[in-house]
Amino acid sequence: MQNSLSISDSDGSSFVHLVVLELAKNTEAEAITWLLSRIRDKQKNGGAELLVEQLPLEGQQKENPNIFLVGSTWQRLLTGAEDMGLFKEFHDGTMRGFTNANRDSFKEFHGDGDGFLSVAECQYIIKHELDTLRAKDETHVPGYPKLRLYPGKSVIRRLQSKGILVQYFPVHDKEELKRLSSDWYKKIKLSFQPLDDIRHYFGEGLALYFGFLEYFTFALVPMALIGIPYYLFDWEDYDKYVLFAVFNLVWSTVFLEVWKRCSAQLAYGWGTLSRKKAFEEPRPGFHGVLGLNPVTGREEPTYSHAKRQMRIYLVSLPFVLLCLYISLHVMMIYFSMETWALSIYDEDPNLLTSVLLFIPSIIYAVVIELMNLLYRYAAEFLTNWENHRLESSFQNHLVLKVLVFNFINCFASLFYIAFVMQDMALLRHSLATLLITSQILNQVMEAFLPYWLQRRRNKKVHKRVRRVMGDQELPMVEQVQLERDMNTYLGTFDDYLEQFLLFGYVSLFSCVYPLAAVLVVLNNVTEVYSDAFKMCHVFKRPFSEPASDIGVWQLAFETMSIIAVFTNCALIGLSPQVQAYFPEADTQLILTVVAVEHVLLAFKFILAFIIPDVPKHIRIKLAKLEFESLEALKKKKMLEAAEISKTKK
Amino acid sequence: MQNSLSISDSDGSSFVHLVVLELAKNTEAEAITWLLSRIRDKQKNGGAELLVEQLPLEGQQKENPNIFLVGSTWQRLLTGAEDMGLFKEFHDGTMRGFTNANRDSFKEFHGDGDGFLSVAECQYIIKHELDTLRAKDETHVPGYPKLRLYPGKSVIRRLQSKGILVQYFPVHDKEELKRLSSDWYKKIKLSFQPLDDIRHYFGEGLALYFGFLEYFTFALVPMALIGIPYYLFDWEDYDKYVLFAVFNLVWSTVFLEVWKRCSAQLAYGWGTLSRKKAFEEPRPGFHGVLGLNPVTGREEPTYSHAKRQMRIYLVSLPFVLLCLYISLHVMMIYFSMETWALSIYDEDPNLLTSVLLFIPSIIYAVVIELMNLLYRYAAEFLTNWENHRLESSFQNHLVLKVLVFNFINCFASLFYIAFVMQDMALLRHSLATLLITSQILNQVMEAFLPYWLQRRRNKKVHKRVRRVMGDQELPMVEQVQLERDMNTYLGTFDDYLEQFLLFGYVSLFSCVYPLAAVLVVLNNVTEVYSDAFKMCHVFKRPFSEPASDIGVWQLAFETMSIIAVFTNCALIGLSPQVQAYFPEADTQLILTVVAVEHVLLAFKFILAFIIPDVPKHIRIKLAKLEFESLEALKKKKMLEAAEISKTKK
Repeated sequence: MQNSLSISDSDGSSFVHLVVLELAKNTEAEAITWLLSRIRDKQKNGGAELLVEQLPLEGQQKENPNIFLVGSTWQRLLTGAEDMGLFKEFHDGTMRGFTNANRDSFKEFHGDGDGFLSVAECQYIIKHELDTLRAKDETHVPGYPKLRLYPGKSVIRRLQSKGILVQYFPVHDKEELKRLSSDWYKKIKLSFQPLDDIRHYFGEGLALYFGFLEYFTFALVPMALIGIPYYLFDWEDYDKYVLFAVFNLVWSTVFLEVWKRCSAQLAYGWGTLSRKKAFEEPRPGFHGVLGLNPVTGREEPTYSHAKRQMRIYLVSLPFVLLCLYISLHVMMIYFSMETWALSIYDEDPNLLTSVLLFIPSIIYAVVIELMNLLYRYAAEFLTNWENHRLESSFQNHLVLKVLVFNFINCFASLFYIAFVMQDMALLRHSLATLLITSQILNQVMEAFLPYWLQRRRNKKVHKRVRRVMGDQELPMVEQVQLERDMNTYLGTFDDYLEQFLLFGYVSLFSCVYPLAAVLVVLNNVTEVYSDAFKMCHVFKRPFSEPASDIGVWQLAFETMSIIAVFTNCALIGLSPQVQAYFPEADTQLILTVVAVEHVLLAFKFILAFIIPDVPKHIRIKLAKLEFESLEALKKKKMLEAAEISKTKK
Repeated sequence: MQNSLSISDSDGSSFVHLVVLELAKNTEAEAITWLLSRIRDKQKNGGAELLVEQLPLEGQQKENPNIFLVGSTWQRLLTGAEDMGLFKEFHDGTMRGFTNANRDSFKEFHGDGDGFLSVAECQYIIKHELDTLRAKDETHVPGYPKLRLYPGKSVIRRLQSKGILVQYFPVHDKEELKRLSSDWYKKIKLSFQPLDDIRHYFGEGLALYFGFLEYFTFALVPMALIGIPYYLFDWEDYDKYVLFAVFNLVWSTVFLEVWKRCSAQLAYGWGTLSRKKAFEEPRPGFHGVLGLNPVTGREEPTYSHAKRQMRIYLVSLPFVLLCLYISLHVMMIYFSMETWALSIYDEDPNLLTSVLLFIPSIIYAVVIELMNLLYRYAAEFLTNWENHRLESSFQNHLVLKVLVFNFINCFASLFYIAFVMQDMALLRHSLATLLITSQILNQVMEAFLPYWLQRRRNKKVHKRVRRVMGDQELPMVEQVQLERDMNTYLGTFDDYLEQFLLFGYVSLFSCVYPLAAVLVVLNNVTEVYSDAFKMCHVFKRPFSEPASDIGVWQLAFETMSIIAVFTNCALIGLSPQVQAYFPEADTQLILTVVAVEHVLLAFKFILAFIIPDVPKHIRIKLAKLEFESLEALKKKKMLEAAEISKTKK
């Protein structure tokens, strides 16, 4: 822990502000007093036992005064770490659940434990403690007679879903951020990303994303290296691409299997691999009739499973199918426009008609972007309306909806060109256009545009501050005011989605356009920098998210690699070289291709089955831990039995 | 627990004999004394704390005198149950790990716990305690200076692998067996098998086999019902079988998914679903250089992973492939013999040549049986030689080897007839022959032949006893002598293998021969009786085997159902009805069939993904248990924290 954020144990006087809590401007004073007292109350009384104080505002009447800073004592944080089952490194190099009782056996635990937990961990613990602050015997929020509370209900989630709690977020640590960003992206250098530092600052979820991004990019390098001579030496007569397709298939399988091992390795070192998931609370937006939860026995809103299934299968599913149909229809219109433009150009080739040639593509690109945007809103609305109880289930349904639509939107036209029109030159051309434009667009939209908007706002604040304080560091009050207005990072969804689509371009079609891998590598190298930059300077600091793998995305990438088997085999079948082997019988050709496809699929599954998901040295460590706990239990039991027999005598 | 087996707590005087331990006839007296003292020794001294006495032999000098009877006190059994983490029904209907501390909260726990554990459970506990009896500071087995021991090494396994311990097995409980067999197979009736009683007597592994057998048979009934009219009303012109094939595919997927739920339900009720696997000991046959186990830190034989992989991939795999090749070669010889016999018959059709027509089939059947037998020995030898450390890994490798070979042996000729010869009439004929002959052969070989051999032996013993005692029940001594000579039940392997092959006949080809399901149903109805009979009267009682599912067989059946998609689609493509739709273009037909196949495969995976593996009410019970233990832990922590803060003040 840095000097700038050291936490003082002295009661109430001054403490390091880790989390900002912003209530609505017009919140009743009574509710505020109640909330603060609940946050400060001792744990044994059902409070969160955290430190909290109001953000001092000097003469800025326009601003919202209801901003609070939350911190904690060290002892409380350690207790919280134990409650949450945080895994830390033990003195023997294994990862173990932290307990206060044997805290001195953990590596890097010195004295009172100052600096033992990273700031991100501290902030996550505070978030967890706030989230699990539960209503006791209050029937409603004081000052809001209509805002009912039930015993055991999370107070924060209730306030958040009713708009009284506007937001709560962890503050940036300027010094550490400066150090991290200089290691990460400030110098252009040939080295790995500082994943451990990223995890230290942003948590495991984000660090795994950057780890995956890096791994994916490195994995593409051999492919890119093979692709360049293909491109340079004019091997474009599709003749050599059978070899490339086979390489492609083996690569995509091995790539995903090895990533599982890498991610297990990373997650083990970060203590999230063997950590048990905490009991999941209902998501804030979940509503329903009050009933009994069969698991916890607590009163909470319940919503019938059958009703949700009805909504999913009778509304969402048909809607998604309709959207897919519309998307395909738009694609067909694009192709006919393209033909029409081409026919006009052929009739009278002049400047005007040659410009006309670009019109369909531009219209189509704009329409696709618009459809994506609209669909995204619709998908979020529908998934929300399906009223999932758990955030994880909500996320899975949203991801599935968005993925399917994006997949069709991006790849349908390529499939059409490849397998219906069978025009490989056009396919190559379209691939190149798509890859290059999406690369440029993405990075501008993702990082530079928001940053530019941000800067304009910040400058005003900076100016005002400078007028008062000169060239000093921004004080806490101003920093909070600034960060409060920054955009909220909505999670790794869009970042993974982009990688997913890039993976699709490479694995599905790169045998036709071997340069695809090169373009993706170039894209990802800049992506690392722009993503790093946007995390550090464009968005509010996100709460760290413990993750042991990349979750549903592993499945998505694996599905894509299975689809890649189909397309690559079909492309092999369409190659003139292969077709030359079967000069007369088309049936023979097709049967052979199908047979090869089945063998490749079987090979893929066997390979996935044979390669263990967790590296051996980590499996041994995990087994060791389990064995030791079993032995300890046995010893304890035996001692107890001896105790009993003694007392009997 | 029955009167005949009630266990007395009084020290040493008389106790119920649960397990028989047979040492070699020429075992050194010193070794016997040592072993018995180790078994009787207190747990705190590292002993098993069990009761043991020698089987009294009256004047039968020829017999082996080194037979011992092992039993236990109730308290010892309850401690053992707790050590092993046995799950029993709690008073609120959930299943929980048994602990002595709150034993009175378990259903059916009365008084001292007499009758709380079933005899099978008691015997399993004794087996476990014997297996985990470890060497202390002995360097070798007394009386055998060459038989070295290392601290922590299982004594029983060491003695067993060196042949000093001939066998150990649980004794039958005549009264309970009589009751079980009358419920199970003695009356012919239309009702379910008494699975709970089977589990009670034989353990979960065997009960799951019988549960699967019953489930499979019932699942086949709709298929059999549809198959009969197909057969009766001469729908044999392959025209209707497209419908049947599609039904077949959906059925086989749903069948396996629903079985997972049923097996989870059964395993939950039996307490094996959520029970943690015990730490697995090396199998008795495992040998290697003495080294340190990285997990336990104990000295034990180690064998290099690379060496084992070499043996697997450089010896076993080529050998298996060679065997497969030979099997296919033999098949081709059979087909040419068949053609040759047919040509002779065609030239001169008389009685002699018509008999000759059967010769190839008979020779082929005999050769197949012989190859199966030889291969089985070879597979066991090779898997043993691969020197797997764990029994589970040994079993998996053995199952895989045997499965692949049996699959090829049974189905290769059918595939050849279906897809190379494309002779559906012959396919139907071969299927019927195979099904009927294998059915009859199996049941004779499996149950009736061994029983007949057994009876002949038993009669002699019975006669001798009757001469002495008249018509009374067999005394313990005689019973042990009898059971000692019974065959050992080698596990459910062969029983599952038979069901696997039957499932193959039905799912792969039944669209061509709809009567297959009917034949399999008939087979399985009698199979239940013959298997039940053989378990009760032909084999030694096996130790109960805790199992939460059917293990590797689930995977085997699922693989078969995937192969079924390929064959059924191909059969659909070959049907004249479908071919009539594509009168000119073969390519169109093949592409359509391939597309249908891919859609069906995708549908299969989605279905398997959507159907939850564990029924909802059991998931809720499991979640409840987890939630409660989390809450209890939290409470404990909070109390501890309060305690600490109190002492500080």
